[in-house]
Amino acid sequence: MKAVGVVVEYNPFHNGHYYHIKQSKNKTGADVVIAVMSGHFLQRGEPALVDKWHRAKMALLSGVDIVIELPYVFATSKAETFANGAIQLLSAMNCETFAFGSEDGNIEPFQNTFLLLQEFRTEYNELIKQFMSSGNSYPKSLFEAYEQLKQKKPQLYIDLSQPNNILGYHYIEAVHTLKSSIKPVTIQRVQAGYHDDIKLDSSIASATGIRKALFESSSLNEITQYVPKTTYDQLVQWQSTYHQFVNWEAFWPLLRFTITRYVPKDLTQFADVSEGIEYALVKYAKISDTFTDFMNHIKSKRYTWTRLQRMLTHIFTGITKEQLHQFHSPSYIRLLGMTGKGQQYLSEGKKDFHLPLISRVAQTKDLLLQMDIRATEIYTQGIQLFSSNKIDGDFQTPPIRI
Amino acid sequence: MKAVGVVVEYNPFHNGHYYHIKQSKNKTGADVVIAVMSGHFLQRGEPALVDKWHRAKMALLSGVDIVIELPYVFATSKAETFANGAIQLLSAMNCETFAFGSEDGNIEPFQNTFLLLQEFRTEYNELIKQFMSSGNSYPKSLFEAYEQLKQKKPQLYIDLSQPNNILGYHYIEAVHTLKSSIKPVTIQRVQAGYHDDIKLDSSIASATGIRKALFESSSLNEITQYVPKTTYDQLVQWQSTYHQFVNWEAFWPLLRFTITRYVPKDLTQFADVSEGIEYALVKYAKISDTFTDFMNHIKSKRYTWTRLQRMLTHIFTGITKEQLHQFHSPSYIRLLGMTGKGQQYLSEGKKDFHLPLISRVAQTKDLLLQMDIRATEIYTQGIQLFSSNKIDGDFQTPPIRI
Repeated sequence: MKAVGVVVEYNPFHNGHYYHIKQSKNKTGADVVIAVMSGHFLQRGEPALVDKWHRAKMALLSGVDIVIELPYVFATSKAETFANGAIQLLSAMNCETFAFGSEDGNIEPFQNTFLLLQEFRTEYNELIKQFMSSGNSYPKSLFEAYEQLKQKKPQLYIDLSQPNNILGYHYIEAVHTLKSSIKPVTIQRVQAGYHDDIKLDSSIASATGIRKALFESSSLNEITQYVPKTTYDQLVQWQSTYHQFVNWEAFWPLLRFTITRYVPKDLTQFADVSEGIEYALVKYAKISDTFTDFMNHIKSKRYTWTRLQRMLTHIFTGITKEQLHQFHSPSYIRLLGMTGKGQQYLSEGKKDFHLPLISRVAQTKDLLLQMDIRATEIYTQGIQLFSSNKIDGDFQTPPIRI
Repeated sequence: MKAVGVVVEYNPFHNGHYYHIKQSKNKTGADVVIAVMSGHFLQRGEPALVDKWHRAKMALLSGVDIVIELPYVFATSKAETFANGAIQLLSAMNCETFAFGSEDGNIEPFQNTFLLLQEFRTEYNELIKQFMSSGNSYPKSLFEAYEQLKQKKPQLYIDLSQPNNILGYHYIEAVHTLKSSIKPVTIQRVQAGYHDDIKLDSSIASATGIRKALFESSSLNEITQYVPKTTYDQLVQWQSTYHQFVNWEAFWPLLRFTITRYVPKDLTQFADVSEGIEYALVKYAKISDTFTDFMNHIKSKRYTWTRLQRMLTHIFTGITKEQLHQFHSPSYIRLLGMTGKGQQYLSEGKKDFHLPLISRVAQTKDLLLQMDIRATEIYTQGIQLFSSNKIDGDFQTPPIRI
């Protein structure tokens, strides 16, 4: 059996994801789709809308065959680490191919950019320095250096100012760095408003747009056309059980409490907290009634929204810089769910996997896995702020079988 | 003007307290009553039913003239430290007398016990050792040693197995140790069910009984006969503003979150957390849905309920053993409220006070005061779990004037 890998958050799973899965199988001729999915905290430094089991189930009901958890350390990191962890997992599971989304669906520009920067690394760095010494900002210097470097070999390159392209670039880089035999392909994204062939009246909205609609409207009706029926059902089930969807606003009483119990200097044990932001965090957490108020107080040119949110994620889970930065490779394949076909792939293939497959979590000495378990415990307690229904934790929840 | 001091928690103020105030003035001939009152966390290691300003107001409306805050370090400590801190504050304010409650209203047995133990300290310790080496438990050995020591000088002594007597003993000890000129007197407690002369149909219930009624009944009507009308009004006002009264159960989501974010060994930075209890705290916090569940899991012969609750208080506020144990004396007199007569006492007397009087709290370098402010911040965030109405903190709240 042949597998194609995808790297996802499914926050929540929507029609665009459905299309991506379908195209990934078509383009690669794979028999099964393996999704490496973030757990309860995401790359932008946010808690997930619904827990990882609901999100895994959405995926399995819509074409994914196996859902694997991207460990916390990688899932909440910058693009380079995120991509590297994910590619390691898909390689460990012997995926032949790996499919990511891009604006024009062409892998060449990604490969070209990677090879260009690899070949001319020294010149690139030299150019950046020159632009900076002429008074340009760092991002501006990066851009200008890249523009100039591209003149060396005129061919198609990606636009590195697009976050999605940066992620794609790091996937390609990871494949090379890891000397993985996995073959990357890219699938053209369908735009919001695009009517695809899946369902005549279905349409595409971004996950961000869908979350916005979920938080602004008390009814789920608004999003029906943007998600598969199976996703809709999972969201309805979540809402009827836990009353509300998760974002930082919902967790704010706990996050604020966490921050204000620290003296500022102790916050510097967390990744990226330095240069005085620790004082602002404590000061403004004390006086902010909502997460939005708080972010408006602490945001500045120096810190992007995502960088601030990632800091807050680590402060919230209590996972320190030191704990985060000691890991460069996943040490296990954590199975969140599978279809019948997925199970067949695992049965046939797992003896050749490069990492142990974990179906049921027990007390463990694996520090990487301990962090995933902790992230779930912390997320679960957040849910209990507004619901007396509990999420079963990592120890109690078996892989979902569809 | 002459002042009599009392040491109180007023959780909440009730008819027994009213009687104690009245008798204290009668017995000492004092013009004003100064109450040293615990802030938001109490000696049994619990958060107070309502905030310190509501409790101060109850007192001022029922015969107390000045309410001073007993700093967190003393208010949440064992009887010896609690008593010592309180007596230092009352002495610093030049109280002539100090009145505490006791079962028989006679100061002699307290003085006798103190002098006996002082005179025969060596023999007492020797006797304890002997009883222990004959296989008796420590509490049993203490009891037997004391019984035997009393034979040396037959006169009236207190029963040291009564917690209230232990507190009284430490007041007397503090007066001696501190060489304070304050004169201790004791007022006989009125029993539950006792009908005093204050109001024909009023009756006495313990603060514990009143709290129990408040938590078990949704109506305040049950307690009307046990508290002055002014207390009742304050409780009604609290309930209509903040929806519920405070106990550990109400704060459990935050307390549990706090505990579970620690790895066990880091909990040993807090007073009394040692010998493995740190593992039980983290383990059972994770699986307990309520504070009661949690306490049932962690209680054992080794730890009294109060000792466990004090640990939890310090874990909750994040105040470490090291921070707690560096203070042996209050460094300020924190005014929570006063009547007109109280204000007159302060105006006339404050130049002779031995400590600075703080009416308005500002940012401070005083570590003892920082802990009081922190305790308020933490308590306030607990309230916001169930109410969107905020308590003004220490910086915003001026002393109450009646």
